[in-house]
Amino acid sequence: MSNTETVYQSTDRPVVGIIMGSTSDWPTMEHAANILEEFGVPYENKVVSAHRTPELLVDYATKAVERGIKVIIAGAGGAAHLPGMTASMTSLPVLGVPVQSKALSGLDSLLSIVQMPGGVPVQTLAIGNAGAKNAGLSAVAILALGSDDLRAKLDAYRAKQTAAVYDSQNDLPVPASTPVEL
Amino acid sequence: MSNTETVYQSTDRPVVGIIMGSTSDWPTMEHAANILEEFGVPYENKVVSAHRTPELLVDYATKAVERGIKVIIAGAGGAAHLPGMTASMTSLPVLGVPVQSKALSGLDSLLSIVQMPGGVPVQTLAIGNAGAKNAGLSAVAILALGSDDLRAKLDAYRAKQTAAVYDSQNDLPVPASTPVEL
Amino acid sequence: MSNTETVYQSTDRPVVGIIMGSTSDWPTMEHAANILEEFGVPYENKVVSAHRTPELLVDYATKAVERGIKVIIAGAGGAAHLPGMTASMTSLPVLGVPVQSKALSGLDSLLSIVQMPGGVPVQTLAIGNAGAKNAGLSAVAILALGSDDLRAKLDAYRAKQTAAVYDSQNDLPVPASTPVEL
Amino acid sequence: MSNTETVYQSTDRPVVGIIMGSTSDWPTMEHAANILEEFGVPYENKVVSAHRTPELLVDYATKAVERGIKVIIAGAGGAAHLPGMTASMTSLPVLGVPVQSKALSGLDSLLSIVQMPGGVPVQTLAIGNAGAKNAGLSAVAILALGSDDLRAKLDAYRAKQTAAVYDSQNDLPVPASTPVEL
Amino acid sequence: MSNTETVYQSTDRPVVGIIMGSTSDWPTMEHAANILEEFGVPYENKVVSAHRTPELLVDYATKAVERGIKVIIAGAGGAAHLPGMTASMTSLPVLGVPVQSKALSGLDSLLSIVQMPGGVPVQTLAIGNAGAKNAGLSAVAILALGSDDLRAKLDAYRAKQTAAVYDSQNDLPVPASTPVEL
Amino acid sequence: MSNTETVYQSTDRPVVGIIMGSTSDWPTMEHAANILEEFGVPYENKVVSAHRTPELLVDYATKAVERGIKVIIAGAGGAAHLPGMTASMTSLPVLGVPVQSKALSGLDSLLSIVQMPGGVPVQTLAIGNAGAKNAGLSAVAILALGSDDLRAKLDAYRAKQTAAVYDSQNDLPVPASTPVEL
Amino acid sequence: MSNTETVYQSTDRPVVGIIMGSTSDWPTMEHAANILEEFGVPYENKVVSAHRTPELLVDYATKAVERGIKVIIAGAGGAAHLPGMTASMTSLPVLGVPVQSKALSGLDSLLSIVQMPGGVPVQTLAIGNAGAKNAGLSAVAILALGSDDLRAKLDAYRAKQTAAVYDSQNDLPVPASTPVEL
Amino acid sequence: MSNTETVYQSTDRPVVGIIMGSTSDWPTMEHAANILEEFGVPYENKVVSAHRTPELLVDYATKAVERGIKVIIAGAGGAAHLPGMTASMTSLPVLGVPVQSKALSGLDSLLSIVQMPGGVPVQTLAIGNAGAKNAGLSAVAILALGSDDLRAKLDAYRAKQTAAVYDSQNDLPVPASTPVEL
Repeated sequence: MSNTETVYQSTDRPVVGIIMGSTSDWPTMEHAANILEEFGVPYENKVVSAHRTPELLVDYATKAVERGIKVIIAGAGGAAHLPGMTASMTSLPVLGVPVQSKALSGLDSLLSIVQMPGGVPVQTLAIGNAGAKNAGLSAVAILALGSDDLRAKLDAYRAKQTAAVYDSQNDLPVPASTPVEL
Repeated sequence: MSNTETVYQSTDRPVVGIIMGSTSDWPTMEHAANILEEFGVPYENKVVSAHRTPELLVDYATKAVERGIKVIIAGAGGAAHLPGMTASMTSLPVLGVPVQSKALSGLDSLLSIVQMPGGVPVQTLAIGNAGAKNAGLSAVAILALGSDDLRAKLDAYRAKQTAAVYDSQNDLPVPASTPVEL
Repeated sequence: MSNTETVYQSTDRPVVGIIMGSTSDWPTMEHAANILEEFGVPYENKVVSAHRTPELLVDYATKAVERGIKVIIAGAGGAAHLPGMTASMTSLPVLGVPVQSKALSGLDSLLSIVQMPGGVPVQTLAIGNAGAKNAGLSAVAILALGSDDLRAKLDAYRAKQTAAVYDSQNDLPVPASTPVEL
Repeated sequence: MSNTETVYQSTDRPVVGIIMGSTSDWPTMEHAANILEEFGVPYENKVVSAHRTPELLVDYATKAVERGIKVIIAGAGGAAHLPGMTASMTSLPVLGVPVQSKALSGLDSLLSIVQMPGGVPVQTLAIGNAGAKNAGLSAVAILALGSDDLRAKLDAYRAKQTAAVYDSQNDLPVPASTPVEL
Repeated sequence: MSNTETVYQSTDRPVVGIIMGSTSDWPTMEHAANILEEFGVPYENKVVSAHRTPELLVDYATKAVERGIKVIIAGAGGAAHLPGMTASMTSLPVLGVPVQSKALSGLDSLLSIVQMPGGVPVQTLAIGNAGAKNAGLSAVAILALGSDDLRAKLDAYRAKQTAAVYDSQNDLPVPASTPVEL
Repeated sequence: MSNTETVYQSTDRPVVGIIMGSTSDWPTMEHAANILEEFGVPYENKVVSAHRTPELLVDYATKAVERGIKVIIAGAGGAAHLPGMTASMTSLPVLGVPVQSKALSGLDSLLSIVQMPGGVPVQTLAIGNAGAKNAGLSAVAILALGSDDLRAKLDAYRAKQTAAVYDSQNDLPVPASTPVEL
Repeated sequence: MSNTETVYQSTDRPVVGIIMGSTSDWPTMEHAANILEEFGVPYENKVVSAHRTPELLVDYATKAVERGIKVIIAGAGGAAHLPGMTASMTSLPVLGVPVQSKALSGLDSLLSIVQMPGGVPVQTLAIGNAGAKNAGLSAVAILALGSDDLRAKLDAYRAKQTAAVYDSQNDLPVPASTPVEL
Repeated sequence: MSNTETVYQSTDRPVVGIIMGSTSDWPTMEHAANILEEFGVPYENKVVSAHRTPELLVDYATKAVERGIKVIIAGAGGAAHLPGMTASMTSLPVLGVPVQSKALSGLDSLLSIVQMPGGVPVQTLAIGNAGAKNAGLSAVAILALGSDDLRAKLDAYRAKQTAAVYDSQNDLPVPASTPVEL
């Protein structure tokens, strides 16, 4: 199977497109998917390799608007060109996730994604899992501008996250020091 | 003048807030403002220093939604905490601009902004002027999701930008080489 | 449990506050706690996340003086904003510990903590365990300025540390070389 | 003028295509052109921006073989995607030149170009002018595999370069030291 | 003049010692001195080179306590050993200032100062002028633990610094954008 | 066995020479060999250490043309001088592969190979296995300029690579999200 | 045992002193010792911590000449001050070995050792085991200037090392490729 | 003039050879020459380019011993192979000076020189002028092992250098602070 048509089948009416250069990026990018799943935002997962399937990249990026996509999350590692090239072919917001690379730990991925020239932005998140999760949350934050329901869910998510930190206080040991004179 | 009240006066109904740690960041951040000006997006420019005016930071970030702000652009240099701390106090999209620092050329700014933990995203752009301009364009792209007019303007802007590259072809010299046998 | 009140219970009259962004920082930060324990300096351990509990951060930093805290040790990793933001809201000495991060090994943590702008200092220690231990010792050194007892303990601690190096000489092998003519 | 047709006019039968993201890259890339000029290798200079003219990029890369191009030299700075994306759409040798960037001095350009994934190579040269010159010489070396004339020219060029170093000996001062006993 | 005696003359009863490897560090270190001057904290400025005057270094560090010094501020660049070696010979708090170096912009200075092993802390500030200023402020913060007068001065200084940011709001241009429909 | 003669025996009429500083580089460099094997390009594998066998290096580089070698692939790690020194002694195309080093993960290897001065190019690939594989593919692309058969094989290889990405789509999970109102 | 006297007992008439900050550096530094052992150069191994035993450092460095030491090899990691401080107190050649550190892989060690100011040199070797081995070989090379015997041994060592590379050729696989037409 | 013979004429009986890749390195390397001049050590200055005159490099390195050279100082920038390749062909001590490069400020030069594999050492000094000066001083220190006269000169040089620091004390301003109560 080698034509671009067959790629668009899996999801019904996705508004967020998660694309990645290789299935080996999935353990990172699934953290974005998990967030969208949790918020009930329709999305799709696609392998779109800037370097090995440039035709698919062009197709995906140029058709995203008409297909109803509103935000694209693109993850890639090393000389990570997927987010920037996607951004060159759509005016939709593109969120870039630098996947941690083997030799340079994602510093190459980060610089390849974030240092875009004036005119074609990629909104870049942190290297690795945290960045993928935050790409999901950024997509939700963007979509929440047009959805009070999603805004409420996001605020609730954040409140829960805050509460979890308060609760974790009990996991730290309580000191038993004998005070000196100070 | 030292209270947070007086800060909110200048602009009528801004939807994008451009904040920066110091007026010395303005030569960078004005590239974001110029884009918003060009697209007719109402915005405001504010000095909000994470380190020197934390109270104002809290006030600005927590009131942004109720004041009608939809996207926040935050620029800072060095140990650049403004974007991340703003993001910690609002669920609005926060776009971070790493201002080029003196000693480390903005590498410190970039890492301080982009390497946010999972849960609190900052959507980061390139170091310096290009990043500020792209923060402006990212804000437009986000707002365009709810405005066909803005989407049309953005597509026109990008088309013009593309045309300018085609036109610049004539500025390169035409080779006058004498071919060898190949 | 989600309110800031309940956080302040564990320790009676602490003079050093050890705060960290997450319980996952504890394996690093406990090296600071161990030093304070050893010197009998009353301290407390708290999870205060700059990004997930900004309200608690404000509360902790602004009330530290009145609560009798004299030195704050703050550890964080990645885009490590906790030490700097604490320093923005208290005039107490703030000691920053860059926790070793996954992708960039703490270089991001270090730069996020140490590169503070003029006016709001964070006194930064080394990345990881050594830095946490040294934050503890720095706190002791600061408090020793007002306590001859603590100064004596600190000098004894250092003398013991020096003696341990002398003693370790015996752990190195003794060469059995046959000298050449030189 | 905004269509891809008009771009292909300037040079008659070029075998090397020099492409760059912007006319601002010309002061670097002209060092490649100078070499080709000196060796009499027909070439063309084109502005092809991966991010601002992706359509032209696709067009240029996919038509290069049929247009008679044998080697492509691509220069770009920052998040430098031009060389890698060109390489994704042609099986011709692609030589990448990292243009020195403002904030990060071309380290971002270098990593964005060289760290290509297995399967799609970009043959990368040094940052800046030296790299551009060497891209020209690499193109000559590649073409010389099929041209004894070019091989002879290249060997002569290198011999002259070597002689220039010998001649430069006279430009160093002759020491006038008074020897001690050694 | 080459003996250590004559070094101790200039200041009457200093409590902060500012030392630096060379007079060429003074343009950086004077920012520390200016703060101490402003707060009325008695201090002294000394050239103590770890590498060229190790005897003076030993003398300075070992006699600091008995001379009444309470805090030492040490600035150095490149392979910056002065702060760490001072810390090895006194249990007083040592504040390290990485002076911006020529080739590596102070990254070498920073790592040489901050990466101290567990047991011998140097409390490190930012690279360059900001770091020197903050070393001065850190010394004040430490001394303020034993002086309500100094604490009040420090709080006033910080309040003034905060007010200056509020006042600077007027220096930013007020946007004149024509809002689109959003 | 210690003379250069015996080195040239193993392969009959190789056109690509794969050289490396040590047999410990083989696990990296075999990825180049595998490609040449797959494309049926005659090649040879040699250990040529710039630092431990400089005489062999001179011999290998200066005799490569007369021995029928057309492209040299040179891999080395750390202070990686093999590619550049080979390039200094032959006008053949030299492809450099930075082997991942222990302490600095190949950043030292990369800079040592790629930052060649104007006049003596090394065409550098990515750090590690991907770079070695791409060196093999680059050699094929260069040789394909003189072989329609090889060009066809290369295009087929790339098409297969593209198809594999399309096929991998099925390996990603299909989201089961429940859409919210957007 | 805590006085400097007892440190000098183990070796009879050493001419090379190997010192290190901690016994934990031994697995690295033993590679220097092995070389000296192999060449029959009398040496001694000592733990001398710049930060924990500064008195011993002063003692060791200032007495080295009178004790008959001719070359000092100093290894340290992180903020590695031992080589530079030793060099500040002796005019003997000091060879510095950057021990690989945990967080920054020895980049901090390297910069702390090599970036010495003009006037006080440390002759620095590579990070880790290779550097330690090479420090041993450098000491031999220096001593060989005054010993024909040692020079002969060193030349023999290098010849053997070269021969080993020639012999290793057989460990590489012999390609079995079927040549295409080129 | 293009043969290696004519290179050896300028100096009568040099014991230190200063070599550099290009006359453009002279402004750095003259700091090494100045030291040797000052100490009356006979030396020579030669342009020996590893990449453009490899034949001369082989000639220079292999004949150094027989020509009476005892120490070689080699300076180079970027992919700096001169020191390491010289070291591969002589068992004399080789001192490497990383010349500050344009794009990467000498970090590439430093890593290319210092990260030598076990077996072939280059004794590396700091980046730029300080490193060149220290290479001169290292050569003196090495030669002083066989010359009491040179040792005395070196000790005098260092004593003068120390005295200069003491004298510079007067160049620092004397504080005029009004002490607070501490």
